[in-house]
Amino acid sequence: MGGRSELHQKNLEKIFNPQSVAIIGANKKKGTVPFDILYGILKGEFNGLILPVSPGKQHIAGIKAYKYVTDIEDAVDLGVIVFPSTVAHMALEQCGQKGIKSVVIISAGFREVGEKGVQREQQLLEIARKYDISFIGPNCLGVINTDPQVSLNASFARQMPAAGNIGFLSQSGALCTAVLDYAEAKGIGFSKFVSFGNKADISEVGLMYYLMRDEQTKVILLYLEEVSDGRALMQAARDIIRQSGKPVLIIKSGRTREGASAAASHTGSLASSDEVCDAAFEQAGIIRCENVEELFNLAIAFSYMPLPVSNRIAIITNAGGPGVLATDAAVREGLELAAFSEETARKLKKALPNTANIHNPVDVIGDATADRYEAAMEAVIQDENVDGVCVILTPQSMTDIDAIAHQVVQAAQKYKKPVYASFMGEAGVGSGIRILQENKIPHYFLPESISRVFSAAYRFGQLLRQKPEQPVEMAIPGRPEAETILRQAAAEGKNYLQESQAVQLLKAYGFPVQKGHLATSAEEAAQSAERVGFPVVLKIQSEDILHKSDVGGVRLGVKTGEEARLAYGDIVSSVQSHLPEARIQGVYVTRQIPEGTEVIIGMKRDASFGPVILFGLGGIFVEVFRDVSFRVAPLGRQEALEMIKRSRAYKVLAGARGRRLKDVDGIVDALLRLSRMSVAHPEIREMDINPLIVLDEGEGCFVADVKVFIGG
Amino acid sequence: MGGRSELHQKNLEKIFNPQSVAIIGANKKKGTVPFDILYGILKGEFNGLILPVSPGKQHIAGIKAYKYVTDIEDAVDLGVIVFPSTVAHMALEQCGQKGIKSVVIISAGFREVGEKGVQREQQLLEIARKYDISFIGPNCLGVINTDPQVSLNASFARQMPAAGNIGFLSQSGALCTAVLDYAEAKGIGFSKFVSFGNKADISEVGLMYYLMRDEQTKVILLYLEEVSDGRALMQAARDIIRQSGKPVLIIKSGRTREGASAAASHTGSLASSDEVCDAAFEQAGIIRCENVEELFNLAIAFSYMPLPVSNRIAIITNAGGPGVLATDAAVREGLELAAFSEETARKLKKALPNTANIHNPVDVIGDATADRYEAAMEAVIQDENVDGVCVILTPQSMTDIDAIAHQVVQAAQKYKKPVYASFMGEAGVGSGIRILQENKIPHYFLPESISRVFSAAYRFGQLLRQKPEQPVEMAIPGRPEAETILRQAAAEGKNYLQESQAVQLLKAYGFPVQKGHLATSAEEAAQSAERVGFPVVLKIQSEDILHKSDVGGVRLGVKTGEEARLAYGDIVSSVQSHLPEARIQGVYVTRQIPEGTEVIIGMKRDASFGPVILFGLGGIFVEVFRDVSFRVAPLGRQEALEMIKRSRAYKVLAGARGRRLKDVDGIVDALLRLSRMSVAHPEIREMDINPLIVLDEGEGCFVADVKVFIGG
Repeated sequence: MGGRSELHQKNLEKIFNPQSVAIIGANKKKGTVPFDILYGILKGEFNGLILPVSPGKQHIAGIKAYKYVTDIEDAVDLGVIVFPSTVAHMALEQCGQKGIKSVVIISAGFREVGEKGVQREQQLLEIARKYDISFIGPNCLGVINTDPQVSLNASFARQMPAAGNIGFLSQSGALCTAVLDYAEAKGIGFSKFVSFGNKADISEVGLMYYLMRDEQTKVILLYLEEVSDGRALMQAARDIIRQSGKPVLIIKSGRTREGASAAASHTGSLASSDEVCDAAFEQAGIIRCENVEELFNLAIAFSYMPLPVSNRIAIITNAGGPGVLATDAAVREGLELAAFSEETARKLKKALPNTANIHNPVDVIGDATADRYEAAMEAVIQDENVDGVCVILTPQSMTDIDAIAHQVVQAAQKYKKPVYASFMGEAGVGSGIRILQENKIPHYFLPESISRVFSAAYRFGQLLRQKPEQPVEMAIPGRPEAETILRQAAAEGKNYLQESQAVQLLKAYGFPVQKGHLATSAEEAAQSAERVGFPVVLKIQSEDILHKSDVGGVRLGVKTGEEARLAYGDIVSSVQSHLPEARIQGVYVTRQIPEGTEVIIGMKRDASFGPVILFGLGGIFVEVFRDVSFRVAPLGRQEALEMIKRSRAYKVLAGARGRRLKDVDGIVDALLRLSRMSVAHPEIREMDINPLIVLDEGEGCFVADVKVFIGG
Repeated sequence: MGGRSELHQKNLEKIFNPQSVAIIGANKKKGTVPFDILYGILKGEFNGLILPVSPGKQHIAGIKAYKYVTDIEDAVDLGVIVFPSTVAHMALEQCGQKGIKSVVIISAGFREVGEKGVQREQQLLEIARKYDISFIGPNCLGVINTDPQVSLNASFARQMPAAGNIGFLSQSGALCTAVLDYAEAKGIGFSKFVSFGNKADISEVGLMYYLMRDEQTKVILLYLEEVSDGRALMQAARDIIRQSGKPVLIIKSGRTREGASAAASHTGSLASSDEVCDAAFEQAGIIRCENVEELFNLAIAFSYMPLPVSNRIAIITNAGGPGVLATDAAVREGLELAAFSEETARKLKKALPNTANIHNPVDVIGDATADRYEAAMEAVIQDENVDGVCVILTPQSMTDIDAIAHQVVQAAQKYKKPVYASFMGEAGVGSGIRILQENKIPHYFLPESISRVFSAAYRFGQLLRQKPEQPVEMAIPGRPEAETILRQAAAEGKNYLQESQAVQLLKAYGFPVQKGHLATSAEEAAQSAERVGFPVVLKIQSEDILHKSDVGGVRLGVKTGEEARLAYGDIVSSVQSHLPEARIQGVYVTRQIPEGTEVIIGMKRDASFGPVILFGLGGIFVEVFRDVSFRVAPLGRQEALEMIKRSRAYKVLAGARGRRLKDVDGIVDALLRLSRMSVAHPEIREMDINPLIVLDEGEGCFVADVKVFIGG
């Protein structure tokens, strides 16, 4: 991180922890944003100096007002600009003159309104650069810091949220108000709450790094509509997870698959930006959430509870039905229902009535009161086979809801294992739910939600225990040759490589390509065939033809020199009759690759995430099942292997049902070379190696066809 | 429907609409079930006569009490038994003597406590049969009828739910209390609410038929832990949907896949009871829900709104982010975002500010008040390209939430199109949500839920418009022969058929099997081969061998008589060396089927649903992807075709990517024959036709291998 990023980190300190705030453009008119902002800060009991700036007013809300920010005699840590967009740049200029480095620009009317707004935003950026200012916004709701030392609500949220350990960053301002309202009802608190709007200067990435270091923040939440710099986002998430162990949870909207008609390659059409985003998030350890409910379901679990060390969960319920539903969900989420020790079984048997189920899920029976819940929780939570407890309650007439809620709290506080609760219902169990919420026990209306949450927390814990993998460094002696080939093709004004060029390129990168020769006569074809060894394949070479088979340009399984001679003539005349205009360079003769399993590997350059590598089993698996996996380059060896294993068709390679194990190492090697190549040569836009023929283990794999697209 | 089922329908009338209720076993002790039941009826303001029966009490709750039910001089319509299980049978006997035909047995302590309870339950049934009594329970929470003419809360629910159009039937009593609490908070009302417990006499099926005819009920909801009679359930759902147009929504818990190790066939191991349940529900038009939230999300949409006539939805929002999330969800659910007419666009342009988005999703912008929402709703809902509207609101400081809620109500009431709302948040938008709830506008916290609900309602509407299909009747002249084969195999004490027997069976049912002969010498093998025509396949025939290939018992592609002669010897000696003990009947010689696409069809008898037919593409598709579909037999032609299309690999048969279209009609025919056979011969337990080789369209398909398992 250098230059401006470092500056942002320094300036963010005063955005969140200012001693004094100037509200630039404050006014007295109720129902306006400037008014709401000023009163928000006032009502939020900001622990510092409030300085309204408002030309023409002596005082606002009883506080002395200044004509210009430069008129203020005190030092100003934070400027909050609420002037209309047309004059916001002047306010920012004055902030610069006053020496204010930390600014929040609430004002709307920028990039979101079109070309003029884009220009205004550019102007803001230039001023910020001139004065080393960092700003959040424009077109945002503002920032909140609940730390009682600061207590800053510089936003037009109706009220200050409760303090807590969740840091929330949102690109959408409107969503923020709904989120605050939702969180209030669920008793969820925040450490920092930021609406960053158009992110013209400080982006989500800068804010994430700030939250990484923020002591009040344990969980980082984002709502994103657009990922500007995917690689920076991935890096930030990795740094946060590795350095602070904090989970990063993101809603990324815009899942709808955009038309992929523009893609030249198979890989291009398979790798929609949403699927790439899914893969990239997973690769970086980011937990992607579908909606606000899922986001906070997970957030409270991470914020309130330790991470489970295994996936073995115990369920305690006073109703069979919800117990079964929870068990179904646990199995679906890949959890294990803990098998209790004999001691636990003994304790449960002693404490519970005969009709109770003392196995997991434990049913304490509908007439259970707090003592039975207590006994069951105490027994189960101390069992070393149990690494998390799910407590379900349905309100029966004899259920002492509040007492049970207190028992849950006690059990969770006494032992270091995660405890989650589902008191099913609403008003009737409301007081119990409030007790749970106040004591930071994650509570969910549906017991099923607990399984999802437990599984996510468990997998995050696993990730923390993993050693991060470094991308593989490999020597590519042929790299200068590769550059020459690409430069030459670019000079020819082509947007794809000729087959012979593409094969040369792969050869330079050490891919397993078959020996081959370009024959320009039937006689040469026969000689080439003798040289490479039978059987051979003949393919037309013409810069005017991309799909060779369609015009009769390919002949497989040629077994003698004489056959090759005849095939040459057949190919050329077939192509000439299909495409009389096509310029023919000759016929490419290669040794035919033995039969094997066909896979596709490919690369596409994503607008946000850069080079993305694809793997899939060929043919029907790609076409019908879209059974492919993606990873952002560069890849580590383990990651490459993971990509292959991720595909559902992996079993085909792994030798399922009596099939022989295939050369997976060979595919890993090819993926790593492709990764290396895609990083080294940004001029390669998309490419398919399709098929890569994979032989049995130890026998390698071979590139059977390749297409390389270059240029923008 | 005959006998007892008819009786149940008659007696249910008085269970739900009694003029007088005897509470048999009532007592004065607070916190006991008998007390709660009596007070429930009292507090529920039952519109009839309440008659406590309690030996030893003169009066209870100020009402005259009787020693025995037979002491009551008035007619008693309904008996509610709350005595302990040990004496419940005596109470039921007295009900019989008194002439009470309609009974609810709340008492627990029956089947759910083991063998003794099973006997007690049996005793109850015998008494019920003797007196033509129908009863709900035992071990249940009771029944509720909110109809103001009746107002009966004969249950230990804390209070009477609001009146509404949802009929709710639950196997779990405990879940009921949670559901009532949840429903109260969401303002959801019920027509009938039944906890049917052990369903010893009246089952869910009888209750469903009652709700079909019940005028107050528009939607039927079930929570089931176990399907006792799957075919009856399917028939009930079909009758309800066809005759009353009411949707049937079911949570069926116990999804966890049981161990399938006991299955003999491929089909058996693929068809877990949960997957069969999924398929059967779909086939019967039942909407299966995962959890209580989904159940009521759908229920209120069906209860409050008309069915959409197309899948074209319009979204109106005051916040971009939630609009995008809703759009994502709509696309995911297969909905279409309506393209507005020019007139609508004009109206929206006129009514909304410049920065608003007048295309779908319509963004009325954060500062929108009720008038802007009104204009947008009026414009959009009248557009003939729009068949449903989703209104999203996020609470901004200027949002007049209640006024907008009223506008939504007005728009929905004025036009006949479905309108759904998502006011995002909790406390802050609470008053608006209440207005929506009171006026029966389906409201959801997440806009995404609306897409799911709209899609389900649309698909249900489609189902109602479809003509129901009848199972195909086909003449099977070979049926007596099939019976003989099965009888013979059973007499031999086998649990599977020899290949030659199985082939004969299929031939009798008109399946496309290849001609073949059993050769008992090398010479005979050569002759048989000449007779059936080359190439031929030779397979060992031995009742001791199930997997022929594993012991070298199969030879493919035999092209001459001489080859056949040699192959005979090879096969026999290979089998003898692998399995010296095996009794060899000979070698079966058939013409080899040409190459084609391999599919598997099969049958398994499910404990709840009876014969279930499976279809899938062979090999890897079944093994790795489990890409199979199921239908309960008997099948209609359209259903059989649907099964094939349902498999994701259907594209392979449909000639995707330049492949030739396969003979799908041939598969349909084979599925129908299999369906017919599975219904006609209950002694067939499981069977696989694997593979069935499918040739190009018009060229048919052929059974290449078959396994038939018989007996229990």
